[in-house]
Amino acid sequence: MSVKLYTSPLTAEAFAPFGDVLEINGAPDKIINAGLCGRYHDRAALDFGNEGRAGLSLFSAEPRSLPYSFDLLERHPDGSQAFIPMTENPFLVIVAKDMSGKPGTPQAFLTAPHQGVNFHRGTWHGVLTPLAAPGLFAVVDRIGATHNLEEVTFDRPYTVVA
Amino acid sequence: MSVKLYTSPLTAEAFAPFGDVLEINGAPDKIINAGLCGRYHDRAALDFGNEGRAGLSLFSAEPRSLPYSFDLLERHPDGSQAFIPMTENPFLVIVAKDMSGKPGTPQAFLTAPHQGVNFHRGTWHGVLTPLAAPGLFAVVDRIGATHNLEEVTFDRPYTVVA
Repeated sequence: MSVKLYTSPLTAEAFAPFGDVLEINGAPDKIINAGLCGRYHDRAALDFGNEGRAGLSLFSAEPRSLPYSFDLLERHPDGSQAFIPMTENPFLVIVAKDMSGKPGTPQAFLTAPHQGVNFHRGTWHGVLTPLAAPGLFAVVDRIGATHNLEEVTFDRPYTVVA
Repeated sequence: MSVKLYTSPLTAEAFAPFGDVLEINGAPDKIINAGLCGRYHDRAALDFGNEGRAGLSLFSAEPRSLPYSFDLLERHPDGSQAFIPMTENPFLVIVAKDMSGKPGTPQAFLTAPHQGVNFHRGTWHGVLTPLAAPGLFAVVDRIGATHNLEEVTFDRPYTVVA
């Protein structure tokens, strides 16, 4: 028997405890290129720890569909992790607050086109779950010598519904 | 009177003197998430200089169309700059080799869907030129105290044709 989770739209305010929403809104911080480009400057709290460095990788994930069941969350204790969709397709973002070293009840956000996310260091989150093919993302995360991964499996699965 | 430039398809090999092509091809470096995601690991030579740090910004640029005329190239002496399209639309990538501190004859590359680029530190390049709206990109570049910008205007403009 799984526990139902309903999706919420992804907003910067709702997502603030978990990370940054990467999106264009409002006036740019700087206008460049003779007025033809707006720069929304430094929009993610990147964190690569003391002994890591920034890396840029590409992830190609199998698309999922709703209802989507999961029983695993993970976190990266040594660095932030940003996901930038290279398509206009929405994806599912599952996160949870930390409760004494374990994830609390997960929350599920549904992105709008042109939204990415940056998970802050140590944020519990689900695996990458695009909802359409190709599930193609650029990822900015920590590259370093440590394992940088913790996983927790819930006793009962959750099922995300629209 | 402008000088005509013809576009070439963007390939890793042709672009190697200027930077990295960010694209999925071949087998992933690592399979994660129980086989459901391929990680193409650490695909860009990121460089933030001695006193800079990595930043993640969003650029929203006006779309251009071909023929496209320009007379300005720029470079960032203190860091690399990666452009990740957040749409599937192709864009134009204009670069030039350095000739004793000035750009040589420019080359124009046309991306395919799902290709991004990372300009290596100091690479001469044109301003961001999407060919369709929205011209929306995530940018990973150096954030620091220096100006980190050189611009050169050519005596004669170039015109990029298909």
